[in-house]
Amino acid sequence: MPRPITIAFDVMGSDHGPSEVVKGAARLTLESPGIHALLVGDGDEIRKALEEIRHSGERVSVHHAPRFITMEEKPSAALQEKPDASVAVAARLVREGEADAVVSAGNTGAGVLACARHFQLIPGVRRAALAAVYPTQQEHGEKHDPFSLILDVGATVDATPDDLVAFAVMGAQYSKVISKNPDPKVALLSNGVEPQKGPPRVVEAHQKLAALKGIRFSGNVEGVDIPKGRADVIVTDGFVGNVCLKMLEGVAETVVDIARYAYKSKLRWRAGLAMLSSGIKRLKSITDWEQYGGAPVLGFDQLFIKAHGRSKSKAIANAGKVAAKAVSANLAAAIREGLPR
Amino acid sequence: MPRPITIAFDVMGSDHGPSEVVKGAARLTLESPGIHALLVGDGDEIRKALEEIRHSGERVSVHHAPRFITMEEKPSAALQEKPDASVAVAARLVREGEADAVVSAGNTGAGVLACARHFQLIPGVRRAALAAVYPTQQEHGEKHDPFSLILDVGATVDATPDDLVAFAVMGAQYSKVISKNPDPKVALLSNGVEPQKGPPRVVEAHQKLAALKGIRFSGNVEGVDIPKGRADVIVTDGFVGNVCLKMLEGVAETVVDIARYAYKSKLRWRAGLAMLSSGIKRLKSITDWEQYGGAPVLGFDQLFIKAHGRSKSKAIANAGKVAAKAVSANLAAAIREGLPR
Repeated sequence: MPRPITIAFDVMGSDHGPSEVVKGAARLTLESPGIHALLVGDGDEIRKALEEIRHSGERVSVHHAPRFITMEEKPSAALQEKPDASVAVAARLVREGEADAVVSAGNTGAGVLACARHFQLIPGVRRAALAAVYPTQQEHGEKHDPFSLILDVGATVDATPDDLVAFAVMGAQYSKVISKNPDPKVALLSNGVEPQKGPPRVVEAHQKLAALKGIRFSGNVEGVDIPKGRADVIVTDGFVGNVCLKMLEGVAETVVDIARYAYKSKLRWRAGLAMLSSGIKRLKSITDWEQYGGAPVLGFDQLFIKAHGRSKSKAIANAGKVAAKAVSANLAAAIREGLPR
Repeated sequence: MPRPITIAFDVMGSDHGPSEVVKGAARLTLESPGIHALLVGDGDEIRKALEEIRHSGERVSVHHAPRFITMEEKPSAALQEKPDASVAVAARLVREGEADAVVSAGNTGAGVLACARHFQLIPGVRRAALAAVYPTQQEHGEKHDPFSLILDVGATVDATPDDLVAFAVMGAQYSKVISKNPDPKVALLSNGVEPQKGPPRVVEAHQKLAALKGIRFSGNVEGVDIPKGRADVIVTDGFVGNVCLKMLEGVAETVVDIARYAYKSKLRWRAGLAMLSSGIKRLKSITDWEQYGGAPVLGFDQLFIKAHGRSKSKAIANAGKVAAKAVSANLAAAIREGLPR
């Protein structure tokens, strides 16, 4: 039997507390016999949580980390002050070979910084990217995934043309491995489809991507194409990507608020919404964080998956599966090979 | 009686053809006795359209322009080739004092370039901005407007910190004049609320805005705050603003597509949607282009209002009213006075 893939779970600092992350990891050990879960965080809390739930005892181990970083803390100051915080310890354990990848539902910035501190950038990559998987109208790849990937969404706010090219390669390789999409369509986000549209950095990135071999570059897409899912991978800098991703969240919240208002305000509307409930469930399933594994930090020789802070056990387990898949496919090597020479 | 305000309507090049724009201008002459409509475009077509509809004969005049620019044409090449295109003639007539402002539902880029060619930048403004009015969850100002302003959405893709400061002043003054919002809340779009978040140009703009007198700068907002309407005016560069605005359009179209799918696919869903129809109408009224006047090009000594290409007569008439309001309030002077010295 091959050695199992070990995923280090940072169990601290998520919205639902350590027990939910432990539950997700425990679930994973039952569902995926090839995966070992290394739970990093408050040892007592982890053991207490484990006692209450079913799990595979031989595929779970615990590593105590005395402190952790909250959602509200400033990442760099917090990591400086607490080098023994669970997220940093999890990353260090991966670097030291105790685990193969990290899953965390805690502070995003702290996760990215922990990677920068403990992992190595892939040769040819100058800056890392946080990639977000988001729901679209159109389906993608062999799995008919209703998701696209957009990167960077916040790790590198000031990306150069070469950074954008590297992001394109990272996104394409991740999509190949995770979405079983053998030839993903990669597009560059701009304010028009013509190659000369956009600020100089985007125009230059377009030229470089058009000349790059081994990638299916479909040219520029516009904002309107993001929710439609007209590309499998959308490339942009961390500033624009972050604004876009948060706007999608804001729109989703606004729609839910309006529906809630409609539900409360009129009996007739209420009846209508009730009749629509299976339709709404369908819509909800598309916008459901639980279904997909989270946001990978790409560009390092090791993988870090940032699950949403609100993740329940199912999302945590999925993040672990995605991380294991990337490890067994050797994502870092695939990215290295796809970069321009 | 004071001299009426004359609005030059570029009647050519919109999605619904000249007759719809003529209809809107005609409607305006009946509704607003203080406004004169100068219709610029194919003289024969305009006169034919006028014959078929009610209008105030003494408040309408026609200026023939032999050619026009289509939606599909590249703005700069088209304007080079056709200096006598209707949109350019309309702008020239304003510069020459024949009219006070332009309304066009044609090619946006051609409109911005026609302004650059025929108008003067306000002293202290280095680059123009296209501002978009968009629907939000929250209401704004004394009129309880469900709209916010975002600028720039495409005129200046590579804005400097000083450009962003000028955009903030333009947006605030426009909001004061048009939305009757005496002290609009102005925010800077970034990837975090902290002043040090964002690429260098955004961080520097934040510092300058925080130090600027005469403006209520509420700091940074994130993408999630755009649809919520947490600020009256949101400032960003033309690249990011364009992506955001088009993404909002894309999301709206996606929701409509899903609703259409739901309507077709199941009798039960269909009945539910029918019961919800007044709720959906309410939602639609929020996202309805017709209700608001269009996107002003700001930064020039003269005003140009770009109505949406799909505008029907009501939207055209509203754009004319908004333009007249800005002229009578002397928007350009208000912007000049608000700029940093």
